[in-house]
Amino acid sequence: MGDLPARNATPKDLAMPKGRFIVFEGGDTVGKSTQVRWLAASLEQANVPHLITFEPGATWLGGHLRQLLLDPDSGDICPRSEALLYLADKAQHVAELIQPALEQGLVVVSDRYVDSAIAYQGSGRELAREQVTAVARWATDDLRPDLTVLLDADPDAAVATLTAKDRLESAGLALHRRARQAFLEFAAADPAHYLVIDARLPRETIAAQVRDRLAAFNLKLSPPSDMLEL
Amino acid sequence: MGDLPARNATPKDLAMPKGRFIVFEGGDTVGKSTQVRWLAASLEQANVPHLITFEPGATWLGGHLRQLLLDPDSGDICPRSEALLYLADKAQHVAELIQPALEQGLVVVSDRYVDSAIAYQGSGRELAREQVTAVARWATDDLRPDLTVLLDADPDAAVATLTAKDRLESAGLALHRRARQAFLEFAAADPAHYLVIDARLPRETIAAQVRDRLAAFNLKLSPPSDMLEL
Repeated sequence: MGDLPARNATPKDLAMPKGRFIVFEGGDTVGKSTQVRWLAASLEQANVPHLITFEPGATWLGGHLRQLLLDPDSGDICPRSEALLYLADKAQHVAELIQPALEQGLVVVSDRYVDSAIAYQGSGRELAREQVTAVARWATDDLRPDLTVLLDADPDAAVATLTAKDRLESAGLALHRRARQAFLEFAAADPAHYLVIDARLPRETIAAQVRDRLAAFNLKLSPPSDMLEL
Repeated sequence: MGDLPARNATPKDLAMPKGRFIVFEGGDTVGKSTQVRWLAASLEQANVPHLITFEPGATWLGGHLRQLLLDPDSGDICPRSEALLYLADKAQHVAELIQPALEQGLVVVSDRYVDSAIAYQGSGRELAREQVTAVARWATDDLRPDLTVLLDADPDAAVATLTAKDRLESAGLALHRRARQAFLEFAAADPAHYLVIDARLPRETIAAQVRDRLAAFNLKLSPPSDMLEL
């Protein structure tokens, strides 16, 4: 982590808003990508050096793994292999993009991170969540976000709006319910590093709550000047 | 494992030579594939139902992962990702091919298995072997061979004969030395499930030693009728 402030940083460490790792999590269609885009615009306006990224598939390797995972021919990938492939994507993402950016003092904003792997891969019937968690921590060298924004929504409502037909989404409502439960448990277990927001709120309200919370990191952000264009 | 005999099987369990998992391990160019081919021919002659397989790359997924790992463009795959990809190959191999074959009572013979992942991925500078071992055990659902034949050779001699230029081989002599050491340690820690053979012995002698050891599994095998054609 180089000269990054520790997780329990003192006010002195926070004098410069540097090297912060912000993650957006939640089910499909909860509005993560809109919030990431708006936060990016706010960081841009404030001249805060940042990296906007996503999982899975942000690296050369990750792109290939994402293709493999979503390939219709890959229907027989076993649960352990699937989890290991998602975690390989995350390992590469951390080593190649996230960790170097944090070491340069950037604010890194990622659309999904390791919680998604644990919530989805560790909430099926076959794999124990504790074991997926242990492998996920190892894969990511135990790099944890400074803040995870959980956009929480009832999957019974969200799934009804899905149009994409990839494998994850076809896995059904039960998985999405278990994943939501997992996300909420992660947040409850570590409230200092989570911000849970009801995804049904107006998206401007959500964005404002995110900016408010980031003020604790000495990041003073304004709404994007033209939200409609984003 | 269904109705497979337990690892510490009693003679009664061994009345039928079924569901045995035999692995050949060792460095490159030690002659594993010749021994696998000859053993396959001996099993064929004895009418023992068997599955001959290999790692990495025996499944649809594994073939794609092998391509990714050996792709010259993949030079920047980080050590954790590389280990996770090799383990994803093994997870799929176990779930799709090895475990079902064992449950059908076949003798499964694999050219490399999980020891290779631990020996190579867990013997570099970056990753702790205990952690790679733990992930490998999880990936393979802790399925362990009934017998691992380790063809042991001094890599200083073996590497000199390498012609292939793939990434693993270009990783250098130091890695091969550490991997050899790891293989020997695995065998020393669990002699009941390992047969260590000096790979410099004549290959007919090696094959005979393997057949002798398999007699303990009630597998009565003869040399292949025409070794030269194999």
